[in-house]
Amino acid sequence: MSRFFSSKYDALTPYVPGEQPQERKYIKLNTNESPFPPSPMAQRLAREAASGLQLYSDPECRGLVKIAAEKLGLAEDEILFTNGSDEILNFAFMAFCDKAHPAVFPNVTYGFYSVFAELNGIPYEEIPLREDFSINVEDYIGIGKNVFLANPNAQTGIALPKSEIERIVASNPDNVVVIDEAYVDFGGESCLDLIRKYDNLLVCQTLSKSRSLAGARLGFGAGCRALIQDLNTIKYSTNPYNINRMTMAAGIGALSDSAYFEENCRKVIAVREKTSAALRQLGFTVTDSRSNFLLAAYPKMSGQALYLALKEKGVLVRHFETELLKDYNRITIGSEQQMDTFLAILKDILEKAK
Amino acid sequence: MSRFFSSKYDALTPYVPGEQPQERKYIKLNTNESPFPPSPMAQRLAREAASGLQLYSDPECRGLVKIAAEKLGLAEDEILFTNGSDEILNFAFMAFCDKAHPAVFPNVTYGFYSVFAELNGIPYEEIPLREDFSINVEDYIGIGKNVFLANPNAQTGIALPKSEIERIVASNPDNVVVIDEAYVDFGGESCLDLIRKYDNLLVCQTLSKSRSLAGARLGFGAGCRALIQDLNTIKYSTNPYNINRMTMAAGIGALSDSAYFEENCRKVIAVREKTSAALRQLGFTVTDSRSNFLLAAYPKMSGQALYLALKEKGVLVRHFETELLKDYNRITIGSEQQMDTFLAILKDILEKAK
Repeated sequence: MSRFFSSKYDALTPYVPGEQPQERKYIKLNTNESPFPPSPMAQRLAREAASGLQLYSDPECRGLVKIAAEKLGLAEDEILFTNGSDEILNFAFMAFCDKAHPAVFPNVTYGFYSVFAELNGIPYEEIPLREDFSINVEDYIGIGKNVFLANPNAQTGIALPKSEIERIVASNPDNVVVIDEAYVDFGGESCLDLIRKYDNLLVCQTLSKSRSLAGARLGFGAGCRALIQDLNTIKYSTNPYNINRMTMAAGIGALSDSAYFEENCRKVIAVREKTSAALRQLGFTVTDSRSNFLLAAYPKMSGQALYLALKEKGVLVRHFETELLKDYNRITIGSEQQMDTFLAILKDILEKAK
Repeated sequence: MSRFFSSKYDALTPYVPGEQPQERKYIKLNTNESPFPPSPMAQRLAREAASGLQLYSDPECRGLVKIAAEKLGLAEDEILFTNGSDEILNFAFMAFCDKAHPAVFPNVTYGFYSVFAELNGIPYEEIPLREDFSINVEDYIGIGKNVFLANPNAQTGIALPKSEIERIVASNPDNVVVIDEAYVDFGGESCLDLIRKYDNLLVCQTLSKSRSLAGARLGFGAGCRALIQDLNTIKYSTNPYNINRMTMAAGIGALSDSAYFEENCRKVIAVREKTSAALRQLGFTVTDSRSNFLLAAYPKMSGQALYLALKEKGVLVRHFETELLKDYNRITIGSEQQMDTFLAILKDILEKAK
């Protein structure tokens, strides 16, 4: 830290992303990436865009917004694309929260919510999950604060039905409810079609997981025109050209190719169910995940010991050394072959630990 | 605006980027883009990166930082890459300015400085340029505020010698001095080699202009380790994966290909001098620009009238309807052929206006 760093960040602890090792080839099941390459159309359009990079990208992202509106059944001014969904989430904290409008979210969820709150000097409350890691919807009914919920929830993968989300939104008409649907395509129920009914609902999605574009950085928010206008005010006050030309092109390709996207989601769901059953058979506690990962604990081994044993054998999973999650590991659903290898290595580790 | 937008932004007016028209083909001299495509190596590496987009990019940008350190003669932990140089500039406002540490910059400069200050609730002062649009260095000596200077200056293109910048940095040891060198490769004097001497100096550069990567969005800051560490704290609290894989690859190619870069800078400088002489011959007042644009006024025609006449004929230049700049237009230096066409159209307009 330099002697110039503003004291307003005294309590700020940055987010720690999952390991992105460059030195060794791992079976990488630690950052919820897709095991499938982007749609061939996404790759082709991105490659073509590489030759015109001397010109700025379109700050309005018109081509991208057009295809997204078409595919999602929304109007063009109900959508705002950002540099990953992290950016739209930060914009939402910036735009709608302040000292008088605190934020609230579960105590186990995407770790960035508390970082965004700290960064922007926003008071926040973390509401404990139930013991089974489920969200108690009653905790959020009429809470009178801006609500941030990942659905399916991050780390646990557990999803709330749309009807329950709607109850939360309807009961907090004077606060913004942000639903982070990063994992919704793997079996959750999207709330996108509720944005016309509620002017206080912002739905965020990413193309990182189900559209295989983690490395392109593209996410979006959808909400009523006025909410999107506010988020645009933030965008045009931070980085109007936030989406580069190649990412824009890749996004257009990925959104256009619905068949490829749907097929990949089906595959991930099938492999998740198979892996989940295999883990339960081995004695693991596994959450009921509707996402592209599983949260699993083995009663006879600490989460960290298992994480380290897997890493040594060339398999990376995500371990969080927090009180609530330290018995668990978060395992991304890779390809069928990757998960077979993972399970074989896992069985071997458990056998030797006996 | 929605009823949820935080009142802390009551005074915020977003930045207005230059027109990026999609509907008609213009000779585009309005946003200081390079007339040359990116280096063939940049294009090739970016294309290759399009196939691996399912995996997150390296948050540490190791490959990119390595080549930049090598080419610029810096250590790897003295550099931080961002999503365009807008992002590093915003990070600098966030990290080093607050209510107790206000910002100061000229009243004619990059329009985003005041937006960043407003966005982050930072008090700021705009110091008038001299009548000839030059910066009076004495105004900044020992000013005791965080100083933001574009050098060469935005809009005017006028450069300060390194020795004068050094006086400002040395006389404000308890404040950060940010030198925005977006245009330095077209004839300015870089202060990069001063970052080892002064722990309060941050130098920002972009690959948008001289490296032909405006549409890839890549910039960086260079400063002592502690300053870069603070800026990394901000990065890891906003968007750790802020640089996508394709942009990272394009940046590596563009930084590697020094010969292509130097040749393009030489060409732009030569065409600038030729265009500047031609404009003066036509009766224009032209600033002494060391950048890839000219700021020019015609005594017999308002800036706006000329801008509109050029636009009608298919040439886009940048017009700012502010009190100080309304007589002027900012004209990006395009290719020799583009500037010949521009001058021919301009002569025609002036002739008809007689």
